[in-house]
Amino acid sequence: MSGNSFGKLFTVSTFGESHGPAIGCVVDGCPPGLPLSEADIQPELDRRKPGTSRHVTQRQEPDAVQILSGVYEGVTTGTPIALLIKNEDQRSKDYGNIADSFRPGHADYTYWHKYGVRDPRGGGRSSARLTAPVVGAAAIAKKWLKAQYGTEFLGCMSQLGEIEVPFQDWAHAAHNPFFAATGDAALIARMETYMDELRRAGDSIGARIDVIARNVPVGLGQPIYDKLDADIAYAMMGINAVKGIEIGAGFDSVAQRGSEHGDELTPQGFVGNHSGGILGGISTGQDITVSIAIKPTSSIRTPRRSIDKDGNPVTVETFGRHDPCVGIRATPIAEAMLALVLMDHALQHRAQCGDVAVRTPDIARAGR
Amino acid sequence: MSGNSFGKLFTVSTFGESHGPAIGCVVDGCPPGLPLSEADIQPELDRRKPGTSRHVTQRQEPDAVQILSGVYEGVTTGTPIALLIKNEDQRSKDYGNIADSFRPGHADYTYWHKYGVRDPRGGGRSSARLTAPVVGAAAIAKKWLKAQYGTEFLGCMSQLGEIEVPFQDWAHAAHNPFFAATGDAALIARMETYMDELRRAGDSIGARIDVIARNVPVGLGQPIYDKLDADIAYAMMGINAVKGIEIGAGFDSVAQRGSEHGDELTPQGFVGNHSGGILGGISTGQDITVSIAIKPTSSIRTPRRSIDKDGNPVTVETFGRHDPCVGIRATPIAEAMLALVLMDHALQHRAQCGDVAVRTPDIARAGR
Amino acid sequence: MSGNSFGKLFTVSTFGESHGPAIGCVVDGCPPGLPLSEADIQPELDRRKPGTSRHVTQRQEPDAVQILSGVYEGVTTGTPIALLIKNEDQRSKDYGNIADSFRPGHADYTYWHKYGVRDPRGGGRSSARLTAPVVGAAAIAKKWLKAQYGTEFLGCMSQLGEIEVPFQDWAHAAHNPFFAATGDAALIARMETYMDELRRAGDSIGARIDVIARNVPVGLGQPIYDKLDADIAYAMMGINAVKGIEIGAGFDSVAQRGSEHGDELTPQGFVGNHSGGILGGISTGQDITVSIAIKPTSSIRTPRRSIDKDGNPVTVETFGRHDPCVGIRATPIAEAMLALVLMDHALQHRAQCGDVAVRTPDIARAGR
Amino acid sequence: MSGNSFGKLFTVSTFGESHGPAIGCVVDGCPPGLPLSEADIQPELDRRKPGTSRHVTQRQEPDAVQILSGVYEGVTTGTPIALLIKNEDQRSKDYGNIADSFRPGHADYTYWHKYGVRDPRGGGRSSARLTAPVVGAAAIAKKWLKAQYGTEFLGCMSQLGEIEVPFQDWAHAAHNPFFAATGDAALIARMETYMDELRRAGDSIGARIDVIARNVPVGLGQPIYDKLDADIAYAMMGINAVKGIEIGAGFDSVAQRGSEHGDELTPQGFVGNHSGGILGGISTGQDITVSIAIKPTSSIRTPRRSIDKDGNPVTVETFGRHDPCVGIRATPIAEAMLALVLMDHALQHRAQCGDVAVRTPDIARAGR
Repeated sequence: MSGNSFGKLFTVSTFGESHGPAIGCVVDGCPPGLPLSEADIQPELDRRKPGTSRHVTQRQEPDAVQILSGVYEGVTTGTPIALLIKNEDQRSKDYGNIADSFRPGHADYTYWHKYGVRDPRGGGRSSARLTAPVVGAAAIAKKWLKAQYGTEFLGCMSQLGEIEVPFQDWAHAAHNPFFAATGDAALIARMETYMDELRRAGDSIGARIDVIARNVPVGLGQPIYDKLDADIAYAMMGINAVKGIEIGAGFDSVAQRGSEHGDELTPQGFVGNHSGGILGGISTGQDITVSIAIKPTSSIRTPRRSIDKDGNPVTVETFGRHDPCVGIRATPIAEAMLALVLMDHALQHRAQCGDVAVRTPDIARAGR
Repeated sequence: MSGNSFGKLFTVSTFGESHGPAIGCVVDGCPPGLPLSEADIQPELDRRKPGTSRHVTQRQEPDAVQILSGVYEGVTTGTPIALLIKNEDQRSKDYGNIADSFRPGHADYTYWHKYGVRDPRGGGRSSARLTAPVVGAAAIAKKWLKAQYGTEFLGCMSQLGEIEVPFQDWAHAAHNPFFAATGDAALIARMETYMDELRRAGDSIGARIDVIARNVPVGLGQPIYDKLDADIAYAMMGINAVKGIEIGAGFDSVAQRGSEHGDELTPQGFVGNHSGGILGGISTGQDITVSIAIKPTSSIRTPRRSIDKDGNPVTVETFGRHDPCVGIRATPIAEAMLALVLMDHALQHRAQCGDVAVRTPDIARAGR
Repeated sequence: MSGNSFGKLFTVSTFGESHGPAIGCVVDGCPPGLPLSEADIQPELDRRKPGTSRHVTQRQEPDAVQILSGVYEGVTTGTPIALLIKNEDQRSKDYGNIADSFRPGHADYTYWHKYGVRDPRGGGRSSARLTAPVVGAAAIAKKWLKAQYGTEFLGCMSQLGEIEVPFQDWAHAAHNPFFAATGDAALIARMETYMDELRRAGDSIGARIDVIARNVPVGLGQPIYDKLDADIAYAMMGINAVKGIEIGAGFDSVAQRGSEHGDELTPQGFVGNHSGGILGGISTGQDITVSIAIKPTSSIRTPRRSIDKDGNPVTVETFGRHDPCVGIRATPIAEAMLALVLMDHALQHRAQCGDVAVRTPDIARAGR
Repeated sequence: MSGNSFGKLFTVSTFGESHGPAIGCVVDGCPPGLPLSEADIQPELDRRKPGTSRHVTQRQEPDAVQILSGVYEGVTTGTPIALLIKNEDQRSKDYGNIADSFRPGHADYTYWHKYGVRDPRGGGRSSARLTAPVVGAAAIAKKWLKAQYGTEFLGCMSQLGEIEVPFQDWAHAAHNPFFAATGDAALIARMETYMDELRRAGDSIGARIDVIARNVPVGLGQPIYDKLDADIAYAMMGINAVKGIEIGAGFDSVAQRGSEHGDELTPQGFVGNHSGGILGGISTGQDITVSIAIKPTSSIRTPRRSIDKDGNPVTVETFGRHDPCVGIRATPIAEAMLALVLMDHALQHRAQCGDVAVRTPDIARAGR
C-alpha cells in the first residue's frame, strides 16, 4: 500500500536500495506446478544488467539471482517466491558531494521533502537499479504466459535522441548495444558515435522504446479503471524516467477520423491495429503495442544551478557512474512491466470468468 | 478488485450502465467534517453533461445527483458517501441493430469475448456516461483539497483534430463549447464549422486535452509503482477513448539533453517545469501538467466492415445519439481523474508521514 | 480501504445509515452468466428483516431490494451489481435524547471520538440495519456457490442467554422466531417467556449462533493470513455485537490432546471434524462449522450511568425500538458472512490454481 | 493477494519455508525517521525462538535477523524494510516418512489438494516457523507505537490443557518457560511435570493465551468490516493452530444481560471493560483484551490412522522435532499480531482523520 508492491493477483513486492547489501522481491500468487529455477530468470537479468557496453554505467554487478523460497524440487509450490540479488559494486563515496544538495531533474529533492530523510548513496531507492528484481519477477510471468497461451514479449529502441530507428525486425534487437530493431550497421555506428560525443560532453539524452505482446488471449482487462491499457500505462510510467506513453495509434489518434482509426473486422480478423490490441480496456487478441518516452538522465557531469537543503544556491555536477541514456537498458524493463500486467490480468480473468474462458480467437490478427 | 473501484484510501466504486435505471458510486474514505451538499457536486456534473451544445450527443440527461449517505446536517461523517444519478432519457431501440455485431473500434467485441454476454443498450457499462459518477466523486475531492491546501484543477482542449488551439488563458475555457483556452473568436468559429462538417459527414475526430493541478503540496506520491505520475497515467488511460498520456515534457523528452530537460533550482524556486511537477514519482510543489490523446468516437454513421457474433461479414452503421468528438466533454473528466489521484495520495501521504508533513514549500514555482 | 468493502475478488461495498434515505451496496466481481433477479435476493432479506415477531424491533421495514445494475435480460453481465433498499420507517425523534450523551456498551462513544461528528439517528452507520445489504449480496454468492459446487449454508441459535438449545435438525430453524434447530415446543415456549420477561424488565440478553457450510470444495483458503478460518473470523467479528468466534472444536481444543483432536482419515473419509473443515487455513471438503457469541443489546430501557460530550455525568435510558436480543436475527446474517467468505475464496482459488482444480473429493465427510 | 501479505498500510509480506535456505519478510509503509537496528528486533525473536527449554522443539535456530533495506544511518527512510533470517538447522530426512501420507489434523492434506504439490520438509510453508518474520516485523510496529502513543503489549498463557493459570502479574511471564503470569512456583512445577508426561506419552496438548494492549489511542478501527476487533480476530486466527478467539467478555457475553455487559461511564472513566476496549469496531482507549484457543500439535509420536496420496489406509507417526504444545511459544506471536493490527489502524486513522485526531482521552481507564 506504500507503493512497493505491483499487481493484485501476481504481486511483486520489491525492496532494497542501490547501495544496500542486497535488493530483491517477493512474488506472491504464482500458480503452482510451473517448472522454475534460477536459469529461467538469470538470462532476463543479464539483458538488463549494467556494464555490458561502454554506453551504459560501468558499475560491475553480476546481478546473480537466488531463489529463496516457493520452489520445491524444481517446481513452484504456489507459495511466495523470494528473489535475492546481492549488491557487489557499491562505491558510495561517489555520492558524498550530492548528499546535501539536489540534482536538477532528480528525485533527490522530492524524497527529501517527503520523508525528511534519504539514502543518497546511488540514489537509494530511486535508483534504476531497483528495476532488476522486477525483471526477475517478470521472467517467471513470461515463462507461465508462454506455457499457458504462447504469449511472447518483444521490444526495441525506436528513437535515440534525434536519431530515429526505422523498424526492420525484432531479431536485430539482440545484436547491438541499443536494442535497435535494425540490421543497418551504419545506423548503429551513428548511434555509437552519438553516445560517445554525449559522454564526452558530460551530458545525457532521451529515448523512445516500443514493446509488444504477441499471442495474447482475448478478454484480458477490466472494463473500468483496471483497464488493460490503464494498467499498462501505470506500469510503464512506473519505470524510472518515463514521461509519456502511447497505446496503439497513441497521440496520432488526435488528428484521426473515426472512419480511419476504428479497425474494421472481417471473418479473417482485424484489418488494422490502431487500437494497439485493446478496446474498452480489454484485449482483442491482436498484438498489444506500446511506446514510451524516456527522459535524459538527470545525473550529468555538466555544472548546473541548484540549492542545498538549507535553500542556499549551489552548483551541482555529478561524477558517479551513470547511464548517459537510461533508455538504452530500458527495453527489457518495459517488456518486463508488460509481462507483469498481462500475468496479473490473466489471473484476474480466470478468477471471474473461469479458465475455460481464456482463449485466443481463431480469427487472424493484424500485426505491427 | 474487478476494476470498478478507483483509489486506495479515497475509494470510488461506481456502478451502472448507460441505459439501466440509474448510475452512481460509493465514495469511501472521505475525511469527516467537510461541509457538503448536492450543490457542491452538481456544477461539476453540469460541465460534463450531454446536450449542452450541438456538437455533443443530444441525449437529454439532467444528471441530477442525490447524496444517499455519509452526510449529516450538511457535514461529512467519515462514512461512505453514496451518489445516485437516475438515467432519464434512454432510447434503447437505437441500439437494436448492433446487438449482434461489433462496431469497429468499439468495446462491443471485447466485452462479448470476455463475458460471453453483454448489455448492448448504449454501450452498457462501456459508455462514457459512466464518467458522470466519477466527476461527482471528484467534486468532493476538489472541495477537500481546495480547503486543505488551496489546490485547484484547470483544463482545456489544446487540439481538435488537425486544429491546434494556442493557449491564452484558462479562464476562456468556460466560455466556448470546446473548453478551448482561447479568446480568439475566429478560431472558435473555425472549430464550430469543423464539427458541423464532420457531423454532416457522419464521421468523428480525436482531440488533445491538457490539465493541470495548482498549489499541490510537495511530497505526494510513492516512489515505486504507485508513483504520482504512474497513478495519473492509470487514471487518464481509464477515461474512455484515451490512447496516450504525457507528463511535463512528455514525448519531447526523447530528443532533449539532460542539461536542457532537468529543471534547475534557485532559492526562488525551479526555473522550468519539464518534469511536470513530479520527480521520482513524487510531487515537487510545482504545477502538475498532464496531456492526453483522445481517439475519435467509434460509433459513426459511416458504413464499415465488421462481423457478427457468428463471424459472418456484416456492414455496420451506428445511428444512435453520439458525440462526434468525445474529447469535447473530456476536459472536466480529466480534471476529475487528476483530482481523485491527488486526493488519494494526500491521504496516503498523511498515513505514512503524518499531516504536519504535508505542505507546499515556500520557494516560488515555475508555472505552465 | 476505509472499511466499507468486504472481499477481495467478490467485493461488497456498502453504504447508508439507519435513518438516511436508503441503504445498499455495490457487488463487484460476480461472474457473468448467473441468472439473477430480485426474487433470488428478497427471501434472504425477509429472513433477516425486523418486525417479524414480538421478540424483535417493531420498526416496520419491507426491506424491498432493487437491482440497479449488472443484470441484463435476467443474467449477470460481469459488471457491478448495485442493490438499493429504501428506508421507510424512520422515527428519528426517538433518538433525540441520546444525541449528546453516550450509551454504555454502544458505538456512540467511539464514533464521536474518532470522527468528531456522528449521525445519532438510530445509531447511524453503526446500526445492525447495515447488515441488510450484506445479506442481499450474500444471496448472490449463495446462488452461485450452489450452482457451481452444490454448497449450502445452514444456521441456528444454539443458546439464548442461559437457555441452551440442543441441536435436533436444521429444518426446525425455519419454524420458530429464534432460528432454534429444535422441534421441542416446550423449549420454544420457554424461550418466548424468557424474552417477554426481559422485554418487560427493559433489559437485553446475549446469544450463541452456529452456522455451517456443506458441500464445500476442498482447497479453498490461503495458507498464511488469508486463511479460510482467519477470513471467517474477520467476517463474523464484523457482525454487530459479536465478541467471540470458534471454528470446529474452538475453545474445547485447549484441553484436548493431539491424539484426540486431530481427525483421523480412512479411505472412507475423515472420522471426525474437530478441525471444523479447515486445516492449515484451507478447506478439507468437510462441513465448515462456526460458532459465534453475541453480546446483549446496548440500547436498553434500564437507567445507566454515563457521561455527555462535555464529560458531565448523566443517566441514560434508551426508549427507541430495539431488538432485546440482537442474536435473534443474527442467524441469516452469520450465514451470509460465511457465504461471502467462501465465494471470495472460490474466486481466489481459481485465479491461482484454475477452475479445474476446484473440486470436492470423493471420500465421504464426517458431518456435524 | 495470495494471502502472504498482512496489513493495508503497514504491510508485511512474508516468504520462506521451514527447511528452505531462509525465511523473511518485507515491511512496507513504516513511517520515516524511526531509529531502528537489528538490536530492536532480535529480543522479540529470541522470546519466540525454539530450543529455549525442554518443553519446546529442540531444533537449534539462532533466528538471527538481518535488515537488508529501508534503514540508513540507523533511521528508517520510509522505504521497504526487508528482514532476512537464515535457516540453520534443517534435518529434512526427519520428514521423509510423511511425504506421501497425511498427518491427522495437519495441513498436509489440504496443501496437497489445493496445489497438487507440496514441500513436505518440516511442513514447508505451513510451519509455525513462519511466525518468526512476523514477530520481527511487529518489533518495528511496537517500537513506533510505543514512541508515538506509549502503547505496550503484554501476554501470558492462562491455561495449559486442563491446568488453569490464575493471573497474578504480567511481569511473571518472563520468568518461566510457559509465559505464565504467575509467581506460584508449585504451579509452574506442575506444568513442567505435565509437559514431561505428555512428551513421554508421545502426545500433545492445547493452550489458552491472553494478550492485551495498553495505552491505546481512542478512535482506531473502521466501523464496518475492518473493525478493530474483526482485524484482531483475523490476525489471531492467522496464527498456526488457533481455533477460537474472544474479545473482552467473549463467550461469557452469551449469558449476560445488557445491564451487566454494557460498561458504564463516569467522568473518571469506564467502570468496567466487558467490551475489551472496543465498541462498534473502534478502540475506546481502554486496554484491548484478547484471548485465543490453541489446538494441540498435530505432529505426534502416537500411531494414528490416515491415508496416503492414493487413498490407501496407512498408519502415521511423526518422529521429527516438534513442540508438544505450540501454545508455549505462542504468547510473543499473539502480541506481535496485535501490534501489527494496531499499527495498521493507527496509520489508517491518520490517513482519514489526520494525526492531530489520534489521542488517548484523559478519562481514566478500567484495566484488566
